[in-house]
Order: sequence, then C-alpha cells, then structure tokens
Amino acid sequence: MKFRLAFFFCILLTVKIAAQEDSLMFRKISDEILLHGQCYNNLRVLCKTVGNRISGSPAAAKAVIWGEQAMRAAGADNVWLQPVDVPYWYRGKESLALKFGAKANYKQVVALSLGNSEGTGGKPLEAEVVMVHSFDELKAMPDNAVKGKIVFFNYRFRQDFVFTFEGYGDGVKYRWASPSIAAAKGAIGVIIRSMSTGEDDYPHTGGMHYMDSVSKIKIPEMALGNYTADTLERYCLKGVVKAKMQSECYNKPDKVHSYNVIGEIKGTELPEKIITVGGHLDSWDVGEGAQDDGAGCVQSIEILRAFKALGIKPKCTIRAVLFMNEENGCKGGEAYADSAISKKENHLIAIETDAGGFTPRGIGFVMSDEQKDRLKKYKNLFLPYGIYEFNHDEGGSDIGPMKAKLNVPLAGLVPDSQRYFDIHHTRNDVFENVNHRELKLGSVALAQFIWLVSKYGL
Amino acid sequence: MKFRLAFFFCILLTVKIAAQEDSLMFRKISDEILLHGQCYNNLRVLCKTVGNRISGSPAAAKAVIWGEQAMRAAGADNVWLQPVDVPYWYRGKESLALKFGAKANYKQVVALSLGNSEGTGGKPLEAEVVMVHSFDELKAMPDNAVKGKIVFFNYRFRQDFVFTFEGYGDGVKYRWASPSIAAAKGAIGVIIRSMSTGEDDYPHTGGMHYMDSVSKIKIPEMALGNYTADTLERYCLKGVVKAKMQSECYNKPDKVHSYNVIGEIKGTELPEKIITVGGHLDSWDVGEGAQDDGAGCVQSIEILRAFKALGIKPKCTIRAVLFMNEENGCKGGEAYADSAISKKENHLIAIETDAGGFTPRGIGFVMSDEQKDRLKKYKNLFLPYGIYEFNHDEGGSDIGPMKAKLNVPLAGLVPDSQRYFDIHHTRNDVFENVNHRELKLGSVALAQFIWLVSKYGL
Repeated sequence: MKFRLAFFFCILLTVKIAAQEDSLMFRKISDEILLHGQCYNNLRVLCKTVGNRISGSPAAAKAVIWGEQAMRAAGADNVWLQPVDVPYWYRGKESLALKFGAKANYKQVVALSLGNSEGTGGKPLEAEVVMVHSFDELKAMPDNAVKGKIVFFNYRFRQDFVFTFEGYGDGVKYRWASPSIAAAKGAIGVIIRSMSTGEDDYPHTGGMHYMDSVSKIKIPEMALGNYTADTLERYCLKGVVKAKMQSECYNKPDKVHSYNVIGEIKGTELPEKIITVGGHLDSWDVGEGAQDDGAGCVQSIEILRAFKALGIKPKCTIRAVLFMNEENGCKGGEAYADSAISKKENHLIAIETDAGGFTPRGIGFVMSDEQKDRLKKYKNLFLPYGIYEFNHDEGGSDIGPMKAKLNVPLAGLVPDSQRYFDIHHTRNDVFENVNHRELKLGSVALAQFIWLVSKYGL
Repeated sequence: MKFRLAFFFCILLTVKIAAQEDSLMFRKISDEILLHGQCYNNLRVLCKTVGNRISGSPAAAKAVIWGEQAMRAAGADNVWLQPVDVPYWYRGKESLALKFGAKANYKQVVALSLGNSEGTGGKPLEAEVVMVHSFDELKAMPDNAVKGKIVFFNYRFRQDFVFTFEGYGDGVKYRWASPSIAAAKGAIGVIIRSMSTGEDDYPHTGGMHYMDSVSKIKIPEMALGNYTADTLERYCLKGVVKAKMQSECYNKPDKVHSYNVIGEIKGTELPEKIITVGGHLDSWDVGEGAQDDGAGCVQSIEILRAFKALGIKPKCTIRAVLFMNEENGCKGGEAYADSAISKKENHLIAIETDAGGFTPRGIGFVMSDEQKDRLKKYKNLFLPYGIYEFNHDEGGSDIGPMKAKLNVPLAGLVPDSQRYFDIHHTRNDVFENVNHRELKLGSVALAQFIWLVSKYGL
C-alpha cells in the first residue's frame, strides 16, 4: 500500500513538473514572438512589394520567390518548391452602370466581377433589373419573369450571428450559385449584394461556380458594396431600374505552372512524423491579400523562426506550407496531399490559419472525439493567451484533402471574426488593416499548440 | 422519500426553465443590438460633430448637449444633467525640435505635451538631452548630471504582456511622475517615449502630475511617438543631442461648470435599487475620443435603447451615466458618488466601460468573493457571445468613488486589449478605428449582464 501511494505521488509530481515546464515553454514562445517576431515585417514586404497575387499571375510567381526567401530567412532546415498547375482567372477592365428610374441617366457604381465569372466579352450588356431575395423567391416566379433580364440577388449577410463565419456560411451560396440558377430561368446577368458585414461600399469578390447540371449558359456575375446595394434596393422597390454590365474577365484556357512553398524543421526523435501548418499564398486580385491570407503565411513562417530562435528541437518534423490556389481551385492543397500519398509520408496533424490575423480566440479540431478530448485537457495552458474556444470544427480548405485522402486529423486557428467580413476579398484588405500584436498572437497560439502536439502526440 | 424526490425534480426543472429563459433573453438582446443597434451611428455623430472634448472646453459643453439628446432618443424615462465643476487644461501651441549631433540643424518632430503639464510660457526652452531608462538610473546619477538639462525617459511599453493594460500599468509612472523626479535633480524639461504599443510615430498624451513633496518646480513634459523615440535613442547613444521645447499649455485658474449626463429606466419591482452603467464623456484634446471613451458612452446609451425596444421592464432601475472629467480629475465620478450619498440612494452595482469598444472578452468584478462566485455561475450563458474571462479585478475610474465612498460593488467590461494602446490618447483615436460589430458586442455583453443582475441581484 505504501509503495502504491509513493508510486501514485511520483506520477502526480511528474505530471505537475511537466505542466510547469509546458507553461514555461508557452511563456517563452509568447515572449519570443511578441518581442522579436518578424511576421508583421514579413507581411509588410509581401503586401507592399508583391501586393495581391491571384493564382497564375506574375504577382503569384513573385510571391513564391518571396516565400522561399522568407522561409530561408526564418532558418528552416529545408526549403523547397512543390510544383502545382493552377488556373488563371483574369479580370481585365470592368464597369457597372445603373439607371435609377426611367428618365434618369446611367450612373457608374463601384462593382467587382466574381472570381471564375465569365465577362460580357468587353461589350455592354444592358437590361432591366429584377430584385429577388432568395433562390426560392426566384424559383417561384413565372417562367418569363427574369427572361432577358439581370437578376439582383439582394441577400443580406446576417449580422445576428456572433461568429461571422456562420453568416458567411449562410449567405455565400448566393455568390457561388446565382448565375446558373438565374440562367436556368433565362436571365442574362447577375448582380449580388456582397458577402459583407461592412457598413461601407466596398464590393467583395470571391469564388463562384457554373453548375452545368442547372444551366449550360454562363452569364456574368458582379457584386455591389452594401451602400450601393441599399440604393439599388430602394429604387427596385420604387420602379424600373436598368443595368449596364461590361467586363472582360475569363478563365485563361491554359494552366500555369506554380508552386506551394514549403519549409521545415526536421524532427529529432520522430522525424518521419510530420506536423503541417500553413496558410495560402495566393489571394484575390484586389487589395493586398493581407488578412486573406498573407497573415496565415507569415504566421506559419514565424513558427519556424521562433522555434529556431529559441533553440527548440521538436521531436516531430514541423512543416510550414504556403499553399497556392486556395481561392479558386485548391490545387495546392490537392498537390500537397497527393505528394504525401506518393511519398508515403506519415502525417500526425495538419493545421491551417486562414481566418485572418486577428486576436486568436480558439483552435478548432477535425478529428476523433478521443483526440479532441485529449487536446482539450491542455486548455488551461492556453487561457493566459486568450485561447478558450476549442469546440469549433475548423480545419481549412488547403488541408481538406489531407483529411479526405489520408484521414489526417486537422486543426485550424479560430481568430476573432468581427472585422473579417468587412474587408475579406476587397480592395480594403491591406497591410494597414492588420494589427501587429493580433497577428503575432495568432502565431504564438499556433506555435504553442504545435509544440504540445510534437511533444505529446495526439 | 417520493415527495422529496418530486420536490427535488421540481427545483431542477425550475432551474432549467429559468436557464432556458435567460438564454433566450440573451439571444434577444444580442439580436436587437446587432441588427438594430444605434451605438455606432451615435458614435459617428459624437466624433464627427463634436470631436475631441477635453473637460471645461466648449466642445465638452457641446458633448453634454449631444449626450442629453442621445439619452432622450434612446427612450430613457428620465434624463438629467448632474452639475460638476471641472478643471480646464489648455494646450495652445506647442513644438519640439531636436538637434541630432553637434553640427546638425534643429529638426521639428511630432510631440504632444502631457495633460496637466505646464508649458514653457510660449518661449523656447533649449538644453542638452540626457537619456535615462528608469527612475533608478536617474537617481543613481551624480547630482549635477541632469542639472539644466532635458531628461529623456526612454522606457518602452512592455509588449510581452498579453493583456496590454498590464504593460500600461507597468510603464505609466514615467508619464505621470517624471517631471517632479527629474526636477528634483535639477532638470528643466522632460521628454518621454509615449505609453504606446504602436509600430508608428503617434505621440500619446495623457495625465501627468506634479508632486510637491518631490519638487516644487514644475517643468514641462512632452511625449514622442515610438519612431522618433527610436531615433532620439540612437543619437543619444552616439553623442550630444539638443532639444528645443516650446509650449503654451497650462491649467486655467478657474473651474468650469459642467455636467454628468444621466438617463434612466425606472425599475418596476425594486425601483429604489440602482444599477449604474457608464463611460466618460470627456476625452483628451486630440483625435476624436472615439475608443476613449466615446465607445463607452454610446454602449451605455445603447443598453437603455435596447431594453426599451425589447419592452424589457427591469426589476431595478437602470442608469446610464456619461461621466465628465475622467481624464484629468475624475470630478464627475466624485460628484456622482457624492450625490448618491446626499440623496441616500441604494446602489446595487456600478459598471464601467472605459477600455475601448473592441470585441468583449470578459467582465471584471470588484466585489466580495461570494458575489463573484455567484456571478461566475452564469458564465455558460455568456460563452456563446465570446465572454469567457471573469477573473479581472476591473471596475473603472469613474465608478471608483462609488466603491471608495459607498462600498458599492463594481464591474467593468474587459474588451480585447490588443489595439487599445496603439491609439489611446492619440490623434488616431478616431471613429474610423472603431469597428461597428465589436462596439455593438460590447453593448450586448453589458446589457445581458445588467439584465441578469437586475433579475437575480448579487
């Protein structure tokens, strides 16, 4: 009995010492990044010397070179480029004019074509505007109601969700699917109210998709900022509104050779076990892709830098990955998973940061309940860093294929979501709208989490 | 036994139904404010039509009128002005020029006199600069080391604290007390590195204080932004730097009649029990006083509006108070407590929101442990709104006298603190740096908390 008691206390003591060591390491990681972090400076360089960087563009190629250099500067043991062929959607010139009332003149408004949308071939496309608020409303209309017309999908981003990604999830179908559904009813163009929480007039671009099974006809789609959408709504309620769309956008026929950028620190005890952390290097072709997802890229690189600066030699291999083509195809994520399969790699977990560089509030998990429960036991370690939320089922688009193809457990950083959909996919997603401390704290949380997983496994 | 069991289940059921009702009311409050809140619009009006509003100034008088109107528009049952005499610190013209190296010319830099500081009487005050990093370093210097010189207190805001108010608490003594301590050693002026987390060059003003017991001589104090402070540091390390201060600031000899603005909803069952919630109406005389503390004012008013809009008839009386003169004297807070004493008012709790209109993360308590434990039992109600932190001992300056004089329990909103000390007391504390959703969520948390306290007491 005495022996058993002594043994029990030995275990307790070991657990307590380990917890103290972990807490100390959490503090070291936090101090290193908050005091000496380079992620904010790296983001400035990416945003101001490369700028926005849609897949396939010359700017995306420049971003790859930037990424490679940043990985080397962070001190990665190995840095390489993983080939991936990507589409190249080209915007070109575009304009939208609205005529509010029969006797009015056309007035130019600020609008953005949605990514993947076909344009008007550079010629004006003019028609009456029909406002609808939902797919159901459109479907219930008489067959000829929108024939030859431009449909205005006036669906408001729901502001009552506290976690704004729920509002995005709720409304994004109108960006994604409206053209095919409207074309099936004979419409010739689509205007949408942006997926935007903004009290402003920034239009938001973002991916759309032509659904062959719904309609073979590909009609153009443009987005309005909230203020212009409000105006259009008012005039649609009053009488006849006409729109003149003009755009050159199209998907270039040839794929472009591009790359994921990968840097790693080789593990000491279990080098074959890989922990991936990444964001996506491509962005939409407006703004600077600062929050989406320059932030995730520099946070991932920062983890390697901090580990090296602190002399941390992780048990497992830590890989930072800058994925290419998240925004319109996810080809980088697919290529990464395919490479893992062909090389028979052993992946412990894949983690993504693609929800903005705002103050981190949690880490989401896509894994078994047992694994989740195991990780949640560390929650008290995270609390002093403002990380309290572990119940989101969050991974990320780029690491999705790792789950789908290899059943790798996923995790995703969950930052504060309040400002994200004000600037997401807009000209306003610029470096100046990223806060240095918020950005760094995201990297702190990820580095702490990776350090834990590398030490204790799942 | 059967009866006892039945009784037990009855209690359980009652508790569960109450919890469901509470959860439902939390949701209603959140929806009302997120969808129909007027606080952001109110803040726009305050910032853009009144602007900054230091105590005693004509702008502060204009702010009182704004506050009274906003309270009435919110639907308060009673609105009144509570008289309070306040000091009026006047900035006037000011400039600071630095000469980096013996042969260089003077170069104008951006600087701000600290609040309450005496100026140079409008005449140039020129002297060599001596850099120190702490009071201890200054005190350890030979007696004549800073005689006739200008001391540069180069103390950096510690960025390693995750909760930035800890960094502020750590460093603010150099803003507050440096002139007296330097004057005691014979210095004729003080320049400080601002209390700033900013990666920028905004100087931060803020309160300072002459300590008669340390020195009777009142020397002027000015603050530099971080970038200029970095430059000054570099040149001080290399050789001789000279400074030329010129400023007109002073405390006007006469007090100015001013007011706290108060609006209330009368309680139904316990109208004599008062719940106070407030922010401060005055600001420093730069920027627009948007986060500090226009945000707290409009959040407090919003609670009344939301209660009225939802038809909530609280048991206790809810009072929103816009305190005057928090920044340099706290005379409004004193007057409110004094009035409560003279009228023998019965105050249940006083709550302040004066830490910025950022995403709320917690509510701090200054009360007995039993009361704290009681309130913490409701934490699961708050979690869906991102409120998880209840361990800060936070009240607020304006409600401090309610605790000191009447032992009223206090609470304070704890928002995310990452961006606050980038803009606090600077020209950059403007409406554009407040996010509409973050601001509203602060009001949501406060309204929910007040609704709970009104229903269940402490």
